[in-house]
Order: sequence, then structure tokens, then C-alpha cells
Amino acid sequence: MTEKSGNTLKVANQAFAHFQHGLATGEWNSFLDMLTEDFSFWFPVGKYHGLNVGKQKAEAFFDYVTEVFSPGLTLTLDSVTSNEKTVVFEFRDEGMMWKEPYKNRIAVSFDVRGDKICGYREYFGSDGKSN
Amino acid sequence: MTEKSGNTLKVANQAFAHFQHGLATGEWNSFLDMLTEDFSFWFPVGKYHGLNVGKQKAEAFFDYVTEVFSPGLTLTLDSVTSNEKTVVFEFRDEGMMWKEPYKNRIAVSFDVRGDKICGYREYFGSDGKSN
Repeated sequence: MTEKSGNTLKVANQAFAHFQHGLATGEWNSFLDMLTEDFSFWFPVGKYHGLNVGKQKAEAFFDYVTEVFSPGLTLTLDSVTSNEKTVVFEFRDEGMMWKEPYKNRIAVSFDVRGDKICGYREYFGSDGKSN
Repeated sequence: MTEKSGNTLKVANQAFAHFQHGLATGEWNSFLDMLTEDFSFWFPVGKYHGLNVGKQKAEAFFDYVTEVFSPGLTLTLDSVTSNEKTVVFEFRDEGMMWKEPYKNRIAVSFDVRGDKICGYREYFGSDGKSN
């Protein structure tokens, strides 16, 4: 592993820990602090479907996530893969969505620039009912 | 990169080339030849939703993929990440699904054992209409 890919993995792991905390608690500040101003993210469905650009959009999105999944999701991490600029986390999550039982399989990619996350792509591996 | 992770990436890249060929042409033999007998795969939706175990199930699944996406899908590869046992490919695809225009964003994970693929997990990043 090169120095650059080592840094990428370290930064993404830190961001993922904050991301996991955000999903569990609704406290997103630590995660948001790690996003670049030009952060962009792709989401598969709903009102944030497709490409979303800018940190402000991300702040709105993660507040929305908290609203949808109150009182929080718990994660089981299955796999972490990486290269010099990107780290992919595969995990299963579980909790409530709009007060109904929710489970899914997820892959998220974090693109790293320096000590921040500049890109995020989320993918669904199941149907929200099983994982 | 260790020798093991180098081999994992090499084997997965070869399998992905065969996978891409299968999606484009419906010819899956080269890809299927790279699967272990106990190959298992996860798929997000439909009749193969969830965990599917065994190479025979995979043969049926990839024939089904060809039927659904005739005359074939073209792929644009965006990112490849890896570790010692797993490689994740993020790509966009485009073609026809049941004779209607189709586009999606996909992440697939290949788990490698020796010179074969023993596991596969597919995730959807969009809605089948945009990528």
C-alpha cells in the first residue's frame, strides 16, 4: 500500500466512523466537518435521487436521513476495499423507516482528497425489508 | 500491495472482463468458468432477490440477465477498489430492459479464492432510468 492509499483509507475510516455515529444518533457535525465545500453525492432513490452538489445539500440530506430513520440505524460492516482515492464500505443496516421495521444491504463509496471526503456514492443491495 | 491482494485484483479484473462480455453478448461461459462450485451471490430485487447459493443457480441467473437485457448492456467503469479478498467495481450501464430503454449505476463485489470467484454482491445506485 502506498503512502497515498494509506492516507485515503485512514481518512475514509475516520469519516465512516462519524457516518455510523450520525446514522445511529442523528448527530452529523463530525461527519459534515470532514466534507469538502464542493462535496458531491449520488443517491439511488427519492428526493435526492441522482447527483447532488455542495456541502449545503449534504447537510440537508443527512438531516433528512435522520428524519426518515428516527430513532437511528445500526450497522454491521462486512467489507472495506480501497485504492489511492476511493474507499468502498459494504454493510448491512437495521432500524426503523418512517416508524416501520427497516433492513437493507448498502455499499457506499467515499472519494478522499487530502484529509476530507469530496465524493460519496450510495448503492442499495436489498429492498429495505431484508439484509 | 501484497502478493495476495495483487492476485485477487488480477483474478477479479479477468472475471470482470468476462462479466462485461457476458452482459454485452449473452455469452457467459468464460465468466461461469471462473466461478467456484460453491459460488454464492446476492441480488437486490426480483426472483433472485437475496442470497443465492451454487454455480447452477448462477448459470440460471446469468441466462435470465441475458433474457431481461437483450440485446445486451454496455458498461462504463468508474472505479475499482480492492483488498486481499474482495474487489468492488463501480460502473454505469446502458441498454434495453424488456425492450425499454434502461440505464443504471451499479456496484458489484467479487470475492476471490485462488484463481476463481467465490462470491458476488450486486448493488443498485439508481432507478433503471438514469445513470
